[in-house]
Amino acid sequence: MQAAISIDIGGTSTTVAIVEEKGDIAQSINFSMQQISDETDYFKSVFAAISELLLSSPKNNITGIGIGAPSCVSKTGIINGAANLPFQKPVSIVSILEERFNLPAFLIKDGNAAALGEGLYGGAKGMENFMVLTLGTGLGCGIVINNQVVAGHTGQAGELGHASVKLGGRACACGASGCLETYVSATGIKRTLQKLLSDSILKSELRNVSFNDLTPKMIFIAAKKGDSIAKKAFDFTGEMLGRKLAELASLFNPEAFFLAGGLADAGGILFDPVTKHLLQNQLPLHRGNAQVLPSLLKTNEAALLGSASLVWQKSKLSIPCQIK
Amino acid sequence: MQAAISIDIGGTSTTVAIVEEKGDIAQSINFSMQQISDETDYFKSVFAAISELLLSSPKNNITGIGIGAPSCVSKTGIINGAANLPFQKPVSIVSILEERFNLPAFLIKDGNAAALGEGLYGGAKGMENFMVLTLGTGLGCGIVINNQVVAGHTGQAGELGHASVKLGGRACACGASGCLETYVSATGIKRTLQKLLSDSILKSELRNVSFNDLTPKMIFIAAKKGDSIAKKAFDFTGEMLGRKLAELASLFNPEAFFLAGGLADAGGILFDPVTKHLLQNQLPLHRGNAQVLPSLLKTNEAALLGSASLVWQKSKLSIPCQIK
Repeated sequence: MQAAISIDIGGTSTTVAIVEEKGDIAQSINFSMQQISDETDYFKSVFAAISELLLSSPKNNITGIGIGAPSCVSKTGIINGAANLPFQKPVSIVSILEERFNLPAFLIKDGNAAALGEGLYGGAKGMENFMVLTLGTGLGCGIVINNQVVAGHTGQAGELGHASVKLGGRACACGASGCLETYVSATGIKRTLQKLLSDSILKSELRNVSFNDLTPKMIFIAAKKGDSIAKKAFDFTGEMLGRKLAELASLFNPEAFFLAGGLADAGGILFDPVTKHLLQNQLPLHRGNAQVLPSLLKTNEAALLGSASLVWQKSKLSIPCQIK
Repeated sequence: MQAAISIDIGGTSTTVAIVEEKGDIAQSINFSMQQISDETDYFKSVFAAISELLLSSPKNNITGIGIGAPSCVSKTGIINGAANLPFQKPVSIVSILEERFNLPAFLIKDGNAAALGEGLYGGAKGMENFMVLTLGTGLGCGIVINNQVVAGHTGQAGELGHASVKLGGRACACGASGCLETYVSATGIKRTLQKLLSDSILKSELRNVSFNDLTPKMIFIAAKKGDSIAKKAFDFTGEMLGRKLAELASLFNPEAFFLAGGLADAGGILFDPVTKHLLQNQLPLHRGNAQVLPSLLKTNEAALLGSASLVWQKSKLSIPCQIK
């Protein structure tokens, strides 16, 4: 059975893994992006991780490298302008990795990778129309329509994080303001919590935590313990997301929205307000036509599996979920 | 050569036409919706128009009826919940017309009809990814991805008019507030003009016109003559639309957005601010990846041709633009 090296590049960390064709992650290495200042630094870490994995695996088993990354174009193999990555210029990741490891490499937008993974190995198996939203440092998105990942005219489709949801809203790393991911993402809920703390005089144990130390998990635990501000932070995040999903449900009419990424692990405390505001903001005729479901794959697993699947999709005649 | 009866149902009027397969409208009858109070009234007018057209045409030439309407589901053949139509309950238009005229009838959402028409006979010929927005009484929309009209899981895709663009914004006929079509449509620009008149003390000849008498064409003519409030109304409409197109360009990455309907006839005075705000609100990486173009078909022609094409698409093995 063939296997692939799969790379999931995120704003907080990068995961490099060996993925087997049946959908198992045999081995993985994760490194933080915090100490990485530029692309040279970055490739040192990526090369080291891939080399380590190749050493521990029968090399003839690995038939290629699949890469999922934000702000990239599949056709050119280049990552360019990703607000959350420490790259100063366009990075030709496909040619760099092909040259170094003498293996074919394939690049796909992170959100599209997650959509492919969910469709091939997760909860969207058998669905022809669905969307996957990954709630990590930023907000990633992948759209599948008529059983095809939507790539668009120039391969840039599926960018939702920088949709403006509030005129003159929160400043975003992209330079604009009011982008969806400044509200709906791990960073977004932290910003919401800080805003709510500043507006309120209620006690909260989270007043002891700095913004940089704060995690969505801490907000989740506090909310579960009854912290009303933490609870409100999830309500507000769910409302912002639910309103946007109502719009997307009308546009695409998908069978389901899958929420993935760390923030989605919060379960009902996030999903309940999302579903409530989705339903409230749909036209009566559309109400209830789209479900909000958790990804059936572990955090980052969808993207790793989806990126890896590019390797076997490109090397096979029959492809289960086409990429145009 | 076969021909079809095509019906374009809008909030202001209904057009019934004979369309020939090569894309010509041989004959058409238009009636206003103003005097129509319910579905019984409506079908009297539709039956009369179809009968008149059938009488004047060799009947064996007409092989079916294509219907474009807001807020409908192709599979069921039913119009339901259209905010701008005088229907009190769900209307089974397909079965009613099939029974009356003994011809196969096909129903499609108005925006999807316009997208089909533009793709088969208009400016989108040869494009695989594009969107058509019809700016009439309301705002219609049709999306083509990978050369297929996007129908969605339950056939309801392509609804954009009721996307919320302003929390607590203008009241909409659908019952919600802040919907895109309350700003971007013939009605929307009239509301904008009234708002601008109320905010300003500048002179404007449009202060002599009542809301009901006002038309987008009057605003256009005033703007061309130098009326600064009329000009501002187009600028604001263009900004609201441009901002939304920036979001859609990131999501779908279409090759072009086609603007159709009466308001789009205004030309540069509308297209210039639309394009400006589209570009301003895109991520640098995406900037310039989608054009804003006028429909190459006359007002309502795209929808009439698209609806009619259902008749030959359903009766042929080879279909140029698939509908799923």
